[in-house]
Amino acid sequence: MIKISPTRILNDLKMLGQIGATENGGVSRTAMSSADVAGREWFKTQVLEAGLIFRQDGAGNLSALLPRTNPHAKTVLMGSHLDTVPNGGRFDGALGVLSALEVLRTFQEAGFKPTPNLEAISFTDEEGTHVSLLGSRAVAGALSSVTLKRPRSGRRAFEAGMARLGISPESILGARRDPQMLAAYVEVHIEQGTRLEQSKTDVGVVTSIVGIRSHWLTFKGQVAHAGTTSMEDRADALWGGAVFVDNARRLVVDDFTPGVLNVGQIEVDPGSFNIVPGLARLSLEFRHSTETLLDQMQADLFALAEETAKTFGLELTIEQASSAETAPMDEKVITAIEKGASTLSLSHKRLPSFAGHDAQSMSRITPTGMLFVPSVNGISHNPAEHSTQEAVVNGANTLLHTVLALVHT
Amino acid sequence: MIKISPTRILNDLKMLGQIGATENGGVSRTAMSSADVAGREWFKTQVLEAGLIFRQDGAGNLSALLPRTNPHAKTVLMGSHLDTVPNGGRFDGALGVLSALEVLRTFQEAGFKPTPNLEAISFTDEEGTHVSLLGSRAVAGALSSVTLKRPRSGRRAFEAGMARLGISPESILGARRDPQMLAAYVEVHIEQGTRLEQSKTDVGVVTSIVGIRSHWLTFKGQVAHAGTTSMEDRADALWGGAVFVDNARRLVVDDFTPGVLNVGQIEVDPGSFNIVPGLARLSLEFRHSTETLLDQMQADLFALAEETAKTFGLELTIEQASSAETAPMDEKVITAIEKGASTLSLSHKRLPSFAGHDAQSMSRITPTGMLFVPSVNGISHNPAEHSTQEAVVNGANTLLHTVLALVHT
Repeated sequence: MIKISPTRILNDLKMLGQIGATENGGVSRTAMSSADVAGREWFKTQVLEAGLIFRQDGAGNLSALLPRTNPHAKTVLMGSHLDTVPNGGRFDGALGVLSALEVLRTFQEAGFKPTPNLEAISFTDEEGTHVSLLGSRAVAGALSSVTLKRPRSGRRAFEAGMARLGISPESILGARRDPQMLAAYVEVHIEQGTRLEQSKTDVGVVTSIVGIRSHWLTFKGQVAHAGTTSMEDRADALWGGAVFVDNARRLVVDDFTPGVLNVGQIEVDPGSFNIVPGLARLSLEFRHSTETLLDQMQADLFALAEETAKTFGLELTIEQASSAETAPMDEKVITAIEKGASTLSLSHKRLPSFAGHDAQSMSRITPTGMLFVPSVNGISHNPAEHSTQEAVVNGANTLLHTVLALVHT
Repeated sequence: MIKISPTRILNDLKMLGQIGATENGGVSRTAMSSADVAGREWFKTQVLEAGLIFRQDGAGNLSALLPRTNPHAKTVLMGSHLDTVPNGGRFDGALGVLSALEVLRTFQEAGFKPTPNLEAISFTDEEGTHVSLLGSRAVAGALSSVTLKRPRSGRRAFEAGMARLGISPESILGARRDPQMLAAYVEVHIEQGTRLEQSKTDVGVVTSIVGIRSHWLTFKGQVAHAGTTSMEDRADALWGGAVFVDNARRLVVDDFTPGVLNVGQIEVDPGSFNIVPGLARLSLEFRHSTETLLDQMQADLFALAEETAKTFGLELTIEQASSAETAPMDEKVITAIEKGASTLSLSHKRLPSFAGHDAQSMSRITPTGMLFVPSVNGISHNPAEHSTQEAVVNGANTLLHTVLALVHT
């Protein structure tokens, strides 16, 4: 059975992990930084040394292709991203790009000449140092010039970064690809959670990238003297906020597992030891795998907030902050991944992805699938991020056999 | 029966309320401001027009005395403060000073010549624009030069303020009075709560000024990705913080009424929509009338915090922020107030004061008592602060008969 070279991919991971390495074993290779540029150069060298074709598009996305591509054939894309968060880990993104590269090298050595073109791609700025999912959204035609004018890093840093890659807002918008020319997109990634590890499963087959809804909830009560106002006379905004945090947690655990919720910010006003809070403002984010489930969660959480406000004599206002739609994976690709894993006698299970990935952009324009390998202790965006050598090899081999399954159907 | 002049004290309140008046019906006469200086000038004029002796001490405390004082006799002090918080009300402090002045005027007219000296005093900066309870702490010898070097307003504002009153740190520290020369201190004040109004009681007889204990509680969990980390794998610091806020509220209401508690500040770290909080830091303040009750509250609240931290897999640290000891009122003065109210057929009840007052400084050096009149809706430190004309007159008459009771025992 055809398989990738464990030595080669593990060596690649080690080499790449040294580019932008931090003292504590992590990696800082933020998009468009000089470390990112060095990582890109290293990748280009690997592509060319393997006898593959190298390309960079207008969004700074880097590609490797099997030679003798057919300009009239559709392309099966595999990939992920080379950029990291500041002081991140060595696996997030890198694993998907190196697996795709290794699959192409293995096919190249085997003289495999499929009908569709095969391409390994590294998308620019998945982590959003400047613009979240920049490269994949550019390819999917899901970026606007307005978005490019509001980079998270500020315009000067973004412009300096684009100059380093030799790209511009115009070239980025021009990186859009014709969906008619794409056959599928498949991404390998670390799970960044513990579901696979806890269930001792080799491969996670992503069914959907969860949707995310974010709101600000403000409970309004009455500012009061924290000494002279008796407990029963108070309309303490934080009493409502605190009870909501606890009850919302129970609601999600009891009724919406594996959906998740987070209150990541909370502030009270006026904010003094001896003044009863008149306002409590908290950020509410929740994620689930389908729009129907998200709608149900939202209705239940908002009703709970209203009820809690009423209990404590408070007023409630809710403002939407942002939202990301769910990105369902394609059943054909899901099946191909499962077939690939089964071919290798690897255990696998379906699960949603609770983090965003380039696959969510790609799912808008082509049949898309993702496969996860186990993360040790679920740690991610952290120098301690780790996946075993076995997991790395399993992921790349599953990608290879997924592509074979897709090509042969 | 001897009584004060309702017309005169109500007119005084009206006139004084115009000094530093704000557009919305409130008063901004913060200590040592030009409005405060104008209020002091007005007070001096009233004292002199009534044929009383006027004095200012080294702390800027203003006094009125019945003429023909006996330098060898002890003094019965009555008073409160003329300063206000920014945009405060017309009754807080003013009522106590004007009641004391009116009692002296009434005695003066009646030709009353008691054995002890009688003095009405207005203490400087009760509200702590610069140094909380400055005047009364100076008189009680409870101020240090270190405290005067750290004014809340900053040193420049404090120095400018002292210059306006013609005082200095040295003169403030020199305002200490010999406890041997004091017979008692009695203060009339608005309740700033709703206990009297709700129980339809005319006069509140303060048993103790509550002690206040303040702490910072920090719950420490684990920062995590708010998508990929399952709910059961989280050590969310805010889960513990929120449950503590709710359970602490229940504990105090169930076991420590009329004691009160406030969580007036809360912050989480790192503080992002999509990051599970690793730290939750909250301010905890609680008040009760005896040190024994405060010790019990503290032990129970800390045990509850520990238990809550344990439930959510968090670490807890507690840092003391500040504390103010309880100030028990003197039983002899309490009884005199009750006798005074009964003489006037006014209903009265004993209660603790949940706010700080000049009486807490004075209780350290002389037998001290306080009497409250009802506040409409308990509103205070606010332009809407109000007490009825009847309440004002009742308070001043009760003070008069309290002094008579003290002088005659």
